[in-house]
Amino acid sequence: MLGNFVYSNPTRLCFGEGSLDRLKGELENYGGRVMLVYGGGSIKKNGIYDKVTAILKDCGKTVFEDAGVMPNPTVEKLYEGCRIARENEVDLILAVGGGSVCDYSKAVSVSAYCEEDPWDKYYLRMEEPDNKIIPVGCVLTMVGTGSEMNGGSVITNHETKLKIGHVFGDNVFPKFSILDPTFTYTLPKYQMTAGFFDIMNHITEQYFSDTDDSTSDYVMEGLMRSLIHSSRIAVKEPENYEARSNIMWTATWALNTFVAMGKTTDWMVHMIGHAVGAYTNATHGMALAAVALPYYRKICPYGLEKFKRFAVNVWDVRPEGRTDEEIAAAGLSAMEDWMKEIGLVMKISELGATEDMIEGIADATFINSGGYKELTRDEVIDILKESM
Amino acid sequence: MLGNFVYSNPTRLCFGEGSLDRLKGELENYGGRVMLVYGGGSIKKNGIYDKVTAILKDCGKTVFEDAGVMPNPTVEKLYEGCRIARENEVDLILAVGGGSVCDYSKAVSVSAYCEEDPWDKYYLRMEEPDNKIIPVGCVLTMVGTGSEMNGGSVITNHETKLKIGHVFGDNVFPKFSILDPTFTYTLPKYQMTAGFFDIMNHITEQYFSDTDDSTSDYVMEGLMRSLIHSSRIAVKEPENYEARSNIMWTATWALNTFVAMGKTTDWMVHMIGHAVGAYTNATHGMALAAVALPYYRKICPYGLEKFKRFAVNVWDVRPEGRTDEEIAAAGLSAMEDWMKEIGLVMKISELGATEDMIEGIADATFINSGGYKELTRDEVIDILKESM
Repeated sequence: MLGNFVYSNPTRLCFGEGSLDRLKGELENYGGRVMLVYGGGSIKKNGIYDKVTAILKDCGKTVFEDAGVMPNPTVEKLYEGCRIARENEVDLILAVGGGSVCDYSKAVSVSAYCEEDPWDKYYLRMEEPDNKIIPVGCVLTMVGTGSEMNGGSVITNHETKLKIGHVFGDNVFPKFSILDPTFTYTLPKYQMTAGFFDIMNHITEQYFSDTDDSTSDYVMEGLMRSLIHSSRIAVKEPENYEARSNIMWTATWALNTFVAMGKTTDWMVHMIGHAVGAYTNATHGMALAAVALPYYRKICPYGLEKFKRFAVNVWDVRPEGRTDEEIAAAGLSAMEDWMKEIGLVMKISELGATEDMIEGIADATFINSGGYKELTRDEVIDILKESM
Repeated sequence: MLGNFVYSNPTRLCFGEGSLDRLKGELENYGGRVMLVYGGGSIKKNGIYDKVTAILKDCGKTVFEDAGVMPNPTVEKLYEGCRIARENEVDLILAVGGGSVCDYSKAVSVSAYCEEDPWDKYYLRMEEPDNKIIPVGCVLTMVGTGSEMNGGSVITNHETKLKIGHVFGDNVFPKFSILDPTFTYTLPKYQMTAGFFDIMNHITEQYFSDTDDSTSDYVMEGLMRSLIHSSRIAVKEPENYEARSNIMWTATWALNTFVAMGKTTDWMVHMIGHAVGAYTNATHGMALAAVALPYYRKICPYGLEKFKRFAVNVWDVRPEGRTDEEIAAAGLSAMEDWMKEIGLVMKISELGATEDMIEGIADATFINSGGYKELTRDEVIDILKESM
């Protein structure tokens, strides 16, 4: 049953090859001082930096650069970004990159004028902004996080070993996002496939919950089927526009709040994955991939009907002559085959996790209660050990 | 392959039982003069009128009523609404009703300050508004059209026998819509099931086009599966909240522009249905139901792959041991069984169409080219005759 909710998503998406041409029109809606946020410099190699700065110059904007946003943006980097934004009184934050750059830009947008430590206010205490918010626009170069059309913002505090995501309201969503699938062509395969699993896991985190009949679940089955189909093509042909465009679109809709409407959601794979990431600095999607199957196999008996449905509707498992448990298991095996086929990391040990980290990772794991089984600390340890 | 597009949908949706409680908060964003638009008075019988007017009074609004919006709103009614809106300088148009009331309210919103005949400008010439637009909010009491979250506005001119829909841009979308599934409980079964087919047909109009692989098609398969499942429950148990809420949500997403992104769309069933409606004043969804199957059977050979996919992915037709044509036909037969099961009208003759109208209906039918086969006039006549 669909629970009560308010749905509002004001982000404008400009989608398709050449959609960067629309950036100029978007920039006209903002003042002259633009903070250009990007990561490690890949946008300089693939030419996107030159294209974006040419458009900014053409629009007469004064640009303040904030480069070097790392894959798991740190709280120290956030403080630096706030200083740049505030000191230069920027009118717009333009994020050019993947989910980390977008997440970070939203963090700066709510934090620059925050009168206390934004880590405490927004991440530890999860409060909502009551200060000036700087508008954010995105030029996406990597898919997976959905950050281009939501309020999600994950920041890592290495000192306290905490990686926390705050999901802000629609006043913090990017005002616009430019989505050109060809911008994702040059991404290394490791990052590309990590993004694919991030998308899949965003969907499963929202799918594996509740026992009712909900339209959202049917939509998610469609999104998963599309992702599975296109990801198999994309790993073989990274420049297959059809596959990359479908994946880019699926990624956005997997986590722009739509499929969560009326649903309880889980996010336990993300909670464990974030803890793994805080200890190993693993690529987000790979940390999720390495813990997802042990987690789902652990909770499967508690949500058997849904795991059966997942097997049949998403993986085309034929139910005839099988027990419920066998059908559900066959679905997870099909997912495992797909994960190996596209080249995901299946063990946290491959991501640098060691036996002596397990207790610490378990302690750093927030336990959610939205899924089919609220995990105990021992169960988290089991899952981590199964992934060694 | 996903074509290029801009997606923007700023309508805020307040969904669920009791969501009318959110109307007060929404009204606070607008001035004190509210035009209250509704239809034939069913909202007075079911108590929604009293609830809405109590909230308006509580907010201190001055209310200008515009009642009597008919199922296919006429151009004469539009002129009357424009006069009411303009003379009273209303700040907000509050539509309380189904698709016709919402469509009509959007027509008034762009037409009240239009300096020429709005029928000519918006419907015959399909121009975009360049005058003041009055904001619209909706309280939905009937599902099907998706008008609560899109720019669609269909107006009928009986004098010229034309029923034309203009799809306006996001500046004309309702600012907010209140969606309470329990408000749909009291709808007579005929209107309810007509709405169900309207939803289904909105999806099939967007599904049956193109030969590429598109995420939108996978999402539409999910929406159709959900609709089929819930509609079967709702016809037996009209007050089944789970079913009615899923249908209400599916209706919104079937036609809020999302699933059309990157797609060519067809709309030929609507074109024929509109022409039938102009001649018979048939309920919109029933006119669609009566012509859909003859149309799809006619174009099936030209889009065989997609009709096969429809059969397998939407209707669970098993493909083994059947030819492509047999699989596709089995899908349409399954749809026919479902249509009869929920009690739809299958013939235009049951809607008041007579043999002598057929030539006229064919002449009044706009021919689109987005589907698998651009119909000839003779083919439109064949379809109409098959529905007699």
